[in-house]
Amino acid sequence: MTTGTNLQVLLASRPQGWPSEDNFRFVESAMPQIGDGELLVRGLYLSLDPYMRGRMNDAPSYVPPVQLGAVMCGELAGEVVESRNPKFAPGDRVSGDLGWQQYAVSNGRGLRKLAPVTPLTAQLSVCGMPGITAYVGLLDIGKPEPGQTVVVSGAAGAVGSVVGQLAKLRGCRAVGIAGGPDKCRFVVEQLGFDACLDYKAGNLREALEAATPQGIDVYFDNVGGEILDTVLPRMNNFARLPLCGLISQYNATEAYGVKNFRVILVRRIKVQGFIVFDFAERHAAARTDLALWLAEGKLRHHETVAEGLRAAPAAFLGMLRGANLGKQLVKLA
Amino acid sequence: MTTGTNLQVLLASRPQGWPSEDNFRFVESAMPQIGDGELLVRGLYLSLDPYMRGRMNDAPSYVPPVQLGAVMCGELAGEVVESRNPKFAPGDRVSGDLGWQQYAVSNGRGLRKLAPVTPLTAQLSVCGMPGITAYVGLLDIGKPEPGQTVVVSGAAGAVGSVVGQLAKLRGCRAVGIAGGPDKCRFVVEQLGFDACLDYKAGNLREALEAATPQGIDVYFDNVGGEILDTVLPRMNNFARLPLCGLISQYNATEAYGVKNFRVILVRRIKVQGFIVFDFAERHAAARTDLALWLAEGKLRHHETVAEGLRAAPAAFLGMLRGANLGKQLVKLA
Repeated sequence: MTTGTNLQVLLASRPQGWPSEDNFRFVESAMPQIGDGELLVRGLYLSLDPYMRGRMNDAPSYVPPVQLGAVMCGELAGEVVESRNPKFAPGDRVSGDLGWQQYAVSNGRGLRKLAPVTPLTAQLSVCGMPGITAYVGLLDIGKPEPGQTVVVSGAAGAVGSVVGQLAKLRGCRAVGIAGGPDKCRFVVEQLGFDACLDYKAGNLREALEAATPQGIDVYFDNVGGEILDTVLPRMNNFARLPLCGLISQYNATEAYGVKNFRVILVRRIKVQGFIVFDFAERHAAARTDLALWLAEGKLRHHETVAEGLRAAPAAFLGMLRGANLGKQLVKLA
Repeated sequence: MTTGTNLQVLLASRPQGWPSEDNFRFVESAMPQIGDGELLVRGLYLSLDPYMRGRMNDAPSYVPPVQLGAVMCGELAGEVVESRNPKFAPGDRVSGDLGWQQYAVSNGRGLRKLAPVTPLTAQLSVCGMPGITAYVGLLDIGKPEPGQTVVVSGAAGAVGSVVGQLAKLRGCRAVGIAGGPDKCRFVVEQLGFDACLDYKAGNLREALEAATPQGIDVYFDNVGGEILDTVLPRMNNFARLPLCGLISQYNATEAYGVKNFRVILVRRIKVQGFIVFDFAERHAAARTDLALWLAEGKLRHHETVAEGLRAAPAAFLGMLRGANLGKQLVKLA
């Protein structure tokens, strides 16, 4: 029996606009005991993702909100330390939506055993949910052809960094949009994009024109807002716009109005909102392809790692502000 | 040889915002003479369509603008009165993009011979370009399933009036949005929609909630702007939004910002701008189906007909304000 206490992060209050550390509360609870069919997971890495901001609101979205006083939701990768479930044994490495906590009880449903070869951090980034999101959004919705131009916002983030690399693997021109010169350098020099534009530099429209001489065939959008409005007029006839996120809007108290919506009609663009969970039938293929490309050195991954669960709220807020490079993780043990 | 003069309507100036009759100019020119391979068409009906507003601007769109001093573009249905083209004989009824004029010369390219059975006016409305637009937009992009709810804006117009009728033929609930109680009555009583909401009544959001108890699976949009923003939050997961027109925006000097863009992500909606000309491979099937449904009494058509080419500018401006019921035509002879 595992002893000690379990540190957990609860949703203490709902933010209005930008969240703060006050919206979270730490509790030291008794170590959970497992029943028949259950297992206990010791968390090793917690994944922090922009979608979590939506779960803090008491508003209908594609999944219900986190209840006040409940453990914050999130994917945890860890190690089975006790099991009364025949499918899992101590020592197994698993991941699942186990929340912001050091230890979690699971009945095994929705829990995934991790392949031993791929590094644990990569299984939460390039080969995990963010990588699969990039894969289905770019390949299944964006459908880029060799020689076409793919633009991705949030290019230095967990999803965007994979989108551009997959575009290069498909023989496309890959142009990223990111905030600040360091991120842009990382995207070009480390990830191999053809160009990366700093939207904070104040000349995005001109920079985009220069970087996309043939226009844009696929715009993979993670941010929405003004950047979306700047990109739309550069899009070609019959371009595709996989709409993956709107991070610029998640903390806005007033919604940004998209002014260049007309371009969608005139250029006959296809815009499709999507969520990785809708593509469950593609996950196995995506994981296999991504793991192989990683092993072959065709994909790179990078994580920004915060140390310890007590650092999670600040790391989460930092990610919403764009402080991370690549995937934001929290190392628990 | 045909004698007399040819009345033509030229684009005299480009409008800023709403156009006026001053933007058009009439000329009486000499009757055109045909050369080898050409034919002369006497116009019978001119089609007036919202897309023409875009052609009056000197701005890039899916086709080049009308040049200043040139004949306004538009589909003309008429009768061949002289021919030196072996494919056409005097008496043939034809239609094509021959412009706002009483007589037009053609070399036969892009000219279509009209089937003799279907009424000429129907060939410019329910069985012509507007009907085909409704057909490909609803069936190929909207893909409604029996029992689903289809909402269409501009429901009393040339395209919208067909969309709702096709939705009914597919076993769907059809809800129109139109301006004013007369149009709404027409849409329900004459066209057989399940409901029609008057957006001018000032309670569109509430009316839409009441009329779409199961939400919206397909929103066929002809208008954009505030109505689009009101409809978006009623759309179901995986709904489709064929974007056919943005008539509320064509005369706007400042673009409307779409505030509920976020719904596209959260509900995983597919938005697709389209133009009927992109579906050339579907036109023959659409014309056949529409003509059969019309002959079988399954489709109704209605035209608002202005008398004489001199009435065309006022009729066009009226259509942009929504004065027409069904297809707006001008009877030339």
